Amino acid sequence: MHRRKFLKGAALGAGATALAAPAIAQQRKTMTIVSTWPRDFPGLGISAQRLAARITELSEGRLTTEYFAAGERVGAFDSFDEVASGNSQAYIAADYYWVGKHPGFAYFTSVPFGMTTVEWNAWIKFKGGQELWDEISGEFGLKALPCGATGTQAGGWFNKEIESPEDLKGLKMRIPGLGGNVMSKLGVSTVSLPGGQIYENLVSGAIDATEWVGPYNDYFMKFYEAAKYYYTAGMHEPGGGLAFGMNKSWWESLSDWEKAVIEAACMEEHAAAYEENMANNGEYMAKLVNDHGVEIRNFNDDIWDAFGEAAAEVFEETRAHSALAAKIDDSFQKNLREIGGTMALFETTFVNQRNRVLGLV
Amino acid sequence: MHRRKFLKGAALGAGATALAAPAIAQQRKTMTIVSTWPRDFPGLGISAQRLAARITELSEGRLTTEYFAAGERVGAFDSFDEVASGNSQAYIAADYYWVGKHPGFAYFTSVPFGMTTVEWNAWIKFKGGQELWDEISGEFGLKALPCGATGTQAGGWFNKEIESPEDLKGLKMRIPGLGGNVMSKLGVSTVSLPGGQIYENLVSGAIDATEWVGPYNDYFMKFYEAAKYYYTAGMHEPGGGLAFGMNKSWWESLSDWEKAVIEAACMEEHAAAYEENMANNGEYMAKLVNDHGVEIRNFNDDIWDAFGEAAAEVFEETRAHSALAAKIDDSFQKNLREIGGTMALFETTFVNQRNRVLGLV
Repeated sequence: MHRRKFLKGAALGAGATALAAPAIAQQRKTMTIVSTWPRDFPGLGISAQRLAARITELSEGRLTTEYFAAGERVGAFDSFDEVASGNSQAYIAADYYWVGKHPGFAYFTSVPFGMTTVEWNAWIKFKGGQELWDEISGEFGLKALPCGATGTQAGGWFNKEIESPEDLKGLKMRIPGLGGNVMSKLGVSTVSLPGGQIYENLVSGAIDATEWVGPYNDYFMKFYEAAKYYYTAGMHEPGGGLAFGMNKSWWESLSDWEKAVIEAACMEEHAAAYEENMANNGEYMAKLVNDHGVEIRNFNDDIWDAFGEAAAEVFEETRAHSALAAKIDDSFQKNLREIGGTMALFETTFVNQRNRVLGLV
Repeated sequence: MHRRKFLKGAALGAGATALAAPAIAQQRKTMTIVSTWPRDFPGLGISAQRLAARITELSEGRLTTEYFAAGERVGAFDSFDEVASGNSQAYIAADYYWVGKHPGFAYFTSVPFGMTTVEWNAWIKFKGGQELWDEISGEFGLKALPCGATGTQAGGWFNKEIESPEDLKGLKMRIPGLGGNVMSKLGVSTVSLPGGQIYENLVSGAIDATEWVGPYNDYFMKFYEAAKYYYTAGMHEPGGGLAFGMNKSWWESLSDWEKAVIEAACMEEHAAAYEENMANNGEYMAKLVNDHGVEIRNFNDDIWDAFGEAAAEVFEETRAHSALAAKIDDSFQKNLREIGGTMALFETTFVNQRNRVLGLV
């Protein structure tokens, strides 16, 4: 993220800026951003809008952004083609929506038994993750940066208790990405739906269960009207991040300064979105339980073990897709064990001891 | 972080920028930054230098930074007065170095049994932490922002095994902040030394033990030459962050755009510094063990329980200092339980299950 490969366009050295007003005036650019989130949606939608506004602000309008929520310019799942074609300059999305284009995209949102957001950030920024993301995006004419994160997602909303792996069989569930493939192995019939279409499918009975994000984001979806059992940590999206996916040719036409502004805005919002979710989850968890009678449950060890066996199969299948998929998986799994294994000695050990001593859970 | 209270100075609306070159030329400012870290020091030092360079880059030189490492302009622990007096515009430091000025500063680095970095960020940015930081800094003519983080720090380097709370009695240890006060309650004689002076004190025997950061930062300090036992998670600095402390009058003289540039650069580096540590700790942990014969140990439950009892006393004493100290502690402890308690249901539950299923530790 701190590397500059080359200088393109009318980039200005710092010393020349004050004397270069005409050049600055010529550089004013408009950036059309399409998003997969509903407008003003707490959590994801607000974060995306905040990022768009921040790029305009940090660039003093020299990169003026126009933001379109899901459906306002193109449908949520048409964002990829909209930007790859150059019709718009960027999308804000979860890149695992594009596993139909290439399963390797899953690693650039979140994969089952994968990295938490902090672990993923360490991999993306300092252990070669960004370069692999550039490689897979580049195959489709895109360049992506991290731009938001949810934290470890909830296991989901179910209309019955899940007490053994057998209880999952025959369920119809909204769960995208490789996590959906894991659930399929356990007999779940899975679908991928954008956020704006989940509620109607759950209430109509077209699906029996869904995951979305976590207490703060899920609260506003009103899933509790159709499914009373809310499971804490799931295996499917432990962290990772969302994507600011740009048209690659457009990105390469930017000056170093314009790139720096976009990078800084993305990194600032990437952190803030995650932290906003962490800040608000407690308050909204309490509302779900106290105001809407939601029942909180944990998956037991047997279910986690079954998830683990299914996930191992899913990774084998994903690796078999292509050399690039295998290369991404190699890097991801190695760094998960190195980064996550070391964090376990420090942060996880601390958190478990603190929570025990303070009686926090 | 996304609020703008008022517009000062010759701030330019986005629409006016291209026509306002003379105003821009007049606005060019130099910003002198003093740091408490040695020059080019892996981890902390590199992070501070990267931040200084990024402010110049993002502002296209309209805020040109001059960076001085510890001792190059003033001694590490003189940074506070240097900036409060207006001699320099900003320091990069751990704000708990200033507990002699006010014990409330400890909460704006890290306190025993406190928040991890993600929890602390959630509190600072979204639950009133920044406002309290502004209040305590404001009493000394300062304004601070987060600008780096270490993650959960190692318990420290000891020249003997610590198998019970009694083994701590009589030790001389470098450990600053409220964590030092906890150790004092357990019979440790504690000192606060800047990074550049720890090694000589440990090798000479002036101290028996020290904590510093974690494997990546500690590796370069060569503490293993004098102390073979390296303890994983400590209670004293679970996360939190470092401070970019600015002269308050100078900060208030900036335009909204200048403030936005500094905020974005700080937030970007705040995240990156933490993640760089997480990315590199595994590699340097292996070097410590394999190349230098370091022995890894965990504090046992009895020691953690003793830490917990001592910490409760330390917080009582800290609260008794002043109404502001009590107000900060109230907010911190409430948000620790709400944010940390909810993260325990999601992220910690996931990490413990993942690590169990994958055999990660």
